[in-house]
Amino acid sequence: MTLAVRYASARTLDTASVQTAPPGPGEVEIAPAYVGICGTDLHIFHGDMDARVSAPAVLGHEMSGRIVRVGEGVEDWTPGDAVTVMPLRWDDTCPACQGGHQHICQHLDFIGIDSPGAMQQRWTVSASTLIRLPDSLPLDQAALVEPTAVAVHDAGRAQVADGEKIVVVGGGPVGILIALVAQAAGAEVRVVELNAHRRSLAEELGLSTWDPAAVDVTALVGEWTADAGADVAFEVSGAAGGVDTAVDVLGVRGRLCLVAIHPRPREVNLHRFFWRELTLVGARLYDRSDFEKAVTLVADGTIPADRLITKIVPLTEAPAAFDALESGGDVMKILLDCTDDSTGASA
Amino acid sequence: MTLAVRYASARTLDTASVQTAPPGPGEVEIAPAYVGICGTDLHIFHGDMDARVSAPAVLGHEMSGRIVRVGEGVEDWTPGDAVTVMPLRWDDTCPACQGGHQHICQHLDFIGIDSPGAMQQRWTVSASTLIRLPDSLPLDQAALVEPTAVAVHDAGRAQVADGEKIVVVGGGPVGILIALVAQAAGAEVRVVELNAHRRSLAEELGLSTWDPAAVDVTALVGEWTADAGADVAFEVSGAAGGVDTAVDVLGVRGRLCLVAIHPRPREVNLHRFFWRELTLVGARLYDRSDFEKAVTLVADGTIPADRLITKIVPLTEAPAAFDALESGGDVMKILLDCTDDSTGASA
Repeated sequence: MTLAVRYASARTLDTASVQTAPPGPGEVEIAPAYVGICGTDLHIFHGDMDARVSAPAVLGHEMSGRIVRVGEGVEDWTPGDAVTVMPLRWDDTCPACQGGHQHICQHLDFIGIDSPGAMQQRWTVSASTLIRLPDSLPLDQAALVEPTAVAVHDAGRAQVADGEKIVVVGGGPVGILIALVAQAAGAEVRVVELNAHRRSLAEELGLSTWDPAAVDVTALVGEWTADAGADVAFEVSGAAGGVDTAVDVLGVRGRLCLVAIHPRPREVNLHRFFWRELTLVGARLYDRSDFEKAVTLVADGTIPADRLITKIVPLTEAPAAFDALESGGDVMKILLDCTDDSTGASA
Repeated sequence: MTLAVRYASARTLDTASVQTAPPGPGEVEIAPAYVGICGTDLHIFHGDMDARVSAPAVLGHEMSGRIVRVGEGVEDWTPGDAVTVMPLRWDDTCPACQGGHQHICQHLDFIGIDSPGAMQQRWTVSASTLIRLPDSLPLDQAALVEPTAVAVHDAGRAQVADGEKIVVVGGGPVGILIALVAQAAGAEVRVVELNAHRRSLAEELGLSTWDPAAVDVTALVGEWTADAGADVAFEVSGAAGGVDTAVDVLGVRGRLCLVAIHPRPREVNLHRFFWRELTLVGARLYDRSDFEKAVTLVADGTIPADRLITKIVPLTEAPAAFDALESGGDVMKILLDCTDDSTGASA
């Protein structure tokens, strides 16, 4: 028996003892070490995704851990190996997969939403989802690899280039990671964020920030770029005003990379897209090359993962941690500690 | 003295005798032969662009004609040469020009809107705007070169490729031209158009059409593409519903090329851009290479320009022609005949 945290219904998580079984052919059993709480997990917690999530559901897809057991036919992996998981399963037959875009398979299984995730002490996944972690990388920091892979993918979709001027609208975890990835690619970056705590953390990490409630962001971009406008804007806020800002700051042929989820249609200044020949590009998830680059960036310190972790709480305290995040507040990334030592449970 | 048709105020055109002067250094004087009436001309006629247009204003930017006189320093051009004009003047100093995108110069002079256009018997322009026409190309057909250059530019911005499946939303002149250019590039095309006359003309030209009031376009695209969705959609309708259709029909990584002018913000399903990693690309005007390709396509019959000309009316009847277009109706392209024979005026 091991412990699992489950989404039961809107604003309710429970903890349950669940049976473990040996991994099947091609599968591995992992002992998750740390699991980050993501914005999507909060959407589920709010009850916004009940149409998609079958309760009780084990959440969690930002993780690190070690292999415990390997199933039949699994080569290259050994108990004790440090790993993270690219939490995607695709059907390989739909038009998206046939076109080489498996990560946006039309029947994608996102593990941790559509099937059981990592917020438990033992987790069985297909060996094909594993990404190897270097031994030198602390496992708490390694839990940031998955959101870093998102940022790597976003920067790639926006084709961020050396010397470009880039505005990131929204300075939460993904926004900060995008800013750091873009900066590492040689871009100059400004982060637009309302929350003072998040701005302060971003500044400590060497990023320049603007408070859109206090300054005229478009005017400042005009000064910064000698009236040319920004080369790239990332919309990571999810807010209507964030979309407007991201459109307004772009120069001729500028690229807007849409990262945030906007569940309802938004008013968009399409005339500006026409007038300046702007491009809007949607970015979702990542592929294996993004994940592998993310491992490198976290491991070599380009992404100072330790600075982005606000706190680490035991798995058993997940319900309180979700409540705390729900109320907003001055947090960046909260990790759940799933190790046996932390929870006191026996495997 | 020559005759000019001028925009005086909302819904009012007048005709005036205007003085001609010898072309200055680097300029040429043209005798316009045929001038098309464009959607933008109608916007001006409606009074929608009074903030930009200084009345009395000579409109017209879709034209063909012959050189009458050349100014000092003009080489390569001789009276009698058949020409069209790329009606753009840029400042070469703004960030757009410095970035190589002169056609969307931040201080663009669009000749025929921002400065006097071609709806007159004599028209003086910079020789740098001239595009040579082959002698074999009838001048009435050559008046379609400018909108064809728009279509060439749009297809280029959308990166239309051989074998792709393409939906053109809006079957007016520019939509039809885009469809023909895309088809010539090897794409399979469907045109979505409400007006039965325009659908009928498109079908006669070998295009397949759908009436969005009668069929479920998204469902039909699903059948047509085996559930993959279209590769490219062109939004040429200018309508809110057109934007929705263009987004809905696209498959994974599909490209939406925004051609129409949407003066006010539109609600856009941004979630779909995220989910399918769609791209929206704005397309405005053209550059010289688009114009030169357009001359070839019209001259070699790829664009059956004669089939797109609904009627040709004398310059003096421009006011009535604008009134007729304003009421909609079953028209595609109307040309004004500016030749001396037509108007009976003396040059």
